[in-house]
Amino acid sequence: MFKTAELGRSLSEDEFDERAEDLRLKLLIAQDQLQRSKAFQVIVDLAGVSGAGKGMAVNALHTWLDTRFLTTRSYTEPSEEERQRPAYWRYWRDLPRKGRIGLFLRGRYRRLTMDFFDGKVTEAKLENELDRITAFENELSADGAVILKFWLHLGRDAQAKRLKELESNPATSWRVTDVDWKHWHEYDRYISIVERVITKTNTGVAPWHIVESADGRYRDITIAETIVEALADGLRKRQIEPFKADDHARPPKKDPLPKRPAGPPTILSTLDQSEGADKNEYQQQLVELQAEHHVLQRTARHRGVSSIYVFEGSDAAGKGGSIRRLVATLDARNYQVIQVAAPTEEEAAQHYLWRFWRHVSAAGRLTVFDRSWYGRVLVERVEGFASQDEWRRAYAEMNDFEEQLTEYGIVLAKFYLHITPDEQRKRFEARLETPYKRWKLTKDDWRNRARWWDYEQAVHDMVEATDTRHAPWTLIAANDKRAARLKVLRTACEALRRRLNGGD
Amino acid sequence: MFKTAELGRSLSEDEFDERAEDLRLKLLIAQDQLQRSKAFQVIVDLAGVSGAGKGMAVNALHTWLDTRFLTTRSYTEPSEEERQRPAYWRYWRDLPRKGRIGLFLRGRYRRLTMDFFDGKVTEAKLENELDRITAFENELSADGAVILKFWLHLGRDAQAKRLKELESNPATSWRVTDVDWKHWHEYDRYISIVERVITKTNTGVAPWHIVESADGRYRDITIAETIVEALADGLRKRQIEPFKADDHARPPKKDPLPKRPAGPPTILSTLDQSEGADKNEYQQQLVELQAEHHVLQRTARHRGVSSIYVFEGSDAAGKGGSIRRLVATLDARNYQVIQVAAPTEEEAAQHYLWRFWRHVSAAGRLTVFDRSWYGRVLVERVEGFASQDEWRRAYAEMNDFEEQLTEYGIVLAKFYLHITPDEQRKRFEARLETPYKRWKLTKDDWRNRARWWDYEQAVHDMVEATDTRHAPWTLIAANDKRAARLKVLRTACEALRRRLNGGD
Repeated sequence: MFKTAELGRSLSEDEFDERAEDLRLKLLIAQDQLQRSKAFQVIVDLAGVSGAGKGMAVNALHTWLDTRFLTTRSYTEPSEEERQRPAYWRYWRDLPRKGRIGLFLRGRYRRLTMDFFDGKVTEAKLENELDRITAFENELSADGAVILKFWLHLGRDAQAKRLKELESNPATSWRVTDVDWKHWHEYDRYISIVERVITKTNTGVAPWHIVESADGRYRDITIAETIVEALADGLRKRQIEPFKADDHARPPKKDPLPKRPAGPPTILSTLDQSEGADKNEYQQQLVELQAEHHVLQRTARHRGVSSIYVFEGSDAAGKGGSIRRLVATLDARNYQVIQVAAPTEEEAAQHYLWRFWRHVSAAGRLTVFDRSWYGRVLVERVEGFASQDEWRRAYAEMNDFEEQLTEYGIVLAKFYLHITPDEQRKRFEARLETPYKRWKLTKDDWRNRARWWDYEQAVHDMVEATDTRHAPWTLIAANDKRAARLKVLRTACEALRRRLNGGD
Repeated sequence: MFKTAELGRSLSEDEFDERAEDLRLKLLIAQDQLQRSKAFQVIVDLAGVSGAGKGMAVNALHTWLDTRFLTTRSYTEPSEEERQRPAYWRYWRDLPRKGRIGLFLRGRYRRLTMDFFDGKVTEAKLENELDRITAFENELSADGAVILKFWLHLGRDAQAKRLKELESNPATSWRVTDVDWKHWHEYDRYISIVERVITKTNTGVAPWHIVESADGRYRDITIAETIVEALADGLRKRQIEPFKADDHARPPKKDPLPKRPAGPPTILSTLDQSEGADKNEYQQQLVELQAEHHVLQRTARHRGVSSIYVFEGSDAAGKGGSIRRLVATLDARNYQVIQVAAPTEEEAAQHYLWRFWRHVSAAGRLTVFDRSWYGRVLVERVEGFASQDEWRRAYAEMNDFEEQLTEYGIVLAKFYLHITPDEQRKRFEARLETPYKRWKLTKDDWRNRARWWDYEQAVHDMVEATDTRHAPWTLIAANDKRAARLKVLRTACEALRRRLNGGD
């Protein structure tokens, strides 16, 4: 069964770049159709031998997909609340809503395979559980869900090589455990169990795709292409047309940015944008900081110290890129990125802070908010969605909220990424050159420039009112992307170090 | 501060009945306005000395209010997931949505008062925490919430008398603990702490109401009247008009019930409705069964055995009355009643079973579903909301779901309450006589009679397909309300007994 996944397939960097560019546009268009139609959900399971690069595949998908409509869950031992309910409770709870894609790691298959491998589960129980999995997938599929399951494969030798590589690098050595080597030593027995599980659950409605994973570029492109095909197929069957994207393409005839009004400088206008980072130095520092951040977050996980990172900033300031570099080296089980979009009906029927309280994660975990409660005093203030009374009192409410977080011992880091209006225009124009980037650029992005100076004032007031001792703002001059990313990582490391060394 | 609550105020049964009838209509009308407008939420805290009857007050409110738009939370020690987050996480999570009323017992005030009484909390911490409570309430109030806090008061002698009464009755003796007597022995110190807490947090936006509670009738009427006034006041301020309820009043000129179609008898048409229960015998058996059910549920709580009771039945079959009698003697911390109404947006964006999985409660707790997943094969089938394909496959999906529940060890009891069409007509007509009952009767209730025989067939098919060994249906002949209630209690007790004696 796995022979076809040991052929040495790979992609050159050029082939990869070419296919990736095309693929990214297709993914975004399909995801947009899915999201607008809310016709079904897409459930993607990523499984595979250790070292096959599930984490890296997730990173690639996070880079390529619109993460506002993507959720990722990676499972660990069941918590108290999960143990007190039937085993599938957590899988049901974590299903993505219709219109979204859910990525699942270490889910229903892993536990079962492991337990059977370790002799904790009998033959009869294995068969029963496989039937249960199939029933679960059939039910979801009958309801419209598109289900894709990937097995990332490495041959015995390729796996040993990969595990040794990972072990030799301090930033990745944690990924290799005794269990991984145990499986490797019994490779044939382990793989024969996997084969049995895959064979039994390889149904028409929830097929397995075996992906040769010795080459990372081939692996990531193959997974993403399989997803986009299944997604397109699901949309076609339901006759859902792509959204007409005329307004994605063209910039306005006249830049709507007004002249800067007279008035004193703001905290943003005085920000020094001159610092830059040399490309080689950047690469080196990035790797070092990511490794340090990873180690600090692991310590935090062990000590039960949670973190919350808040990202605000103007469009194209580079929030997404900074966040991806922050989490790239982390274990997917230990963090979540919350993309703050329009509230759901349940959220809209509550105090605006409710939806953020909802996402405060359990001890030892990291939650990253891509936009946050500060929307209340930024976009809601500037666009008039919140009354003056509402946004004015929000400062105190947010300070109180943050005080509760930090008093509890949570590491709270707040980043505002600022670029100048000229830099934003340049970035918008550059996006027009690449199809998948042009896709994400809308008329609204240009239109928002008309309010540039109102936003600048709102940010100034926000920092004045909420830059507290327990929850300070870090303003990031982001005209230079590399310098900005390094500063974000450095600040996060400092905040963690201070907390873990018993400072704060 | 409490002198005014030791005056011996009471209500006679007649006074009570008269005021309750009027009050119930007002409550329903106000709740209807609230629910339709979704303008704000109502937060009701019930606190008080032990023995003052918080549980009984909750029962009264559950009887009088429309429980579809009411949530009740009673707190116990924080769970693992709660301990891993700031203390207020659970209070935020449990807030009712706008349009609803939330009743809270043993919440943020109790823990603090207790800890200070026991010397676990310093003066400074007490003051801090009271500020935090006030900030929380101010934030919610600024967002529109109506907040009402009740302190149910008993004088020292009245409390001793009440505690002794409770102790002497086997069905209520569990309510009295050593802690209660400890507080009583230090009544003055305890009450002075309460006085301090109340004084500090008695704000304009979240006022305390001290309720003399020696007389249960006076207590319940006072609480409910205070709620309805505050609610009406909130609605008036926002100029929300009562919903015109013309169609509540009149029965149709012609009963839409069609003639029974030719065909074989169904499982419902053959149900023996002749059994009745004598009023005196009923009272005695009810009390005995409630006590037994209570004891069994306590044992289940200790042993971590959860239960799920499902109620289905035609309109006016008496589901609500049966459920109230089931839970009346239970500790509010250990059960929840889920009224299944239209799905929220988040629920509608998922597989139909998702919203039921969501409510599966933690070990040792009881969840009562007033209507359930069976809606798929009853109302959704009959009204055409689910396609034939959808409702047909639902039988297997529900069996699989229930198998997972019972395999995990959950006690699952499913009740179908059946009345004859004649009996339903009589009940509808009787409701016209009482204003608050007439309020709840709508044109739709009459209209649904046109589909009577379709429903009967759907119930027949449902029982055929889902009356499994692990999750049997109990069909209840409900023309006689008393016999029906006893049978529900008896069945629940048997199911619990079987599970706890290691049978199943």
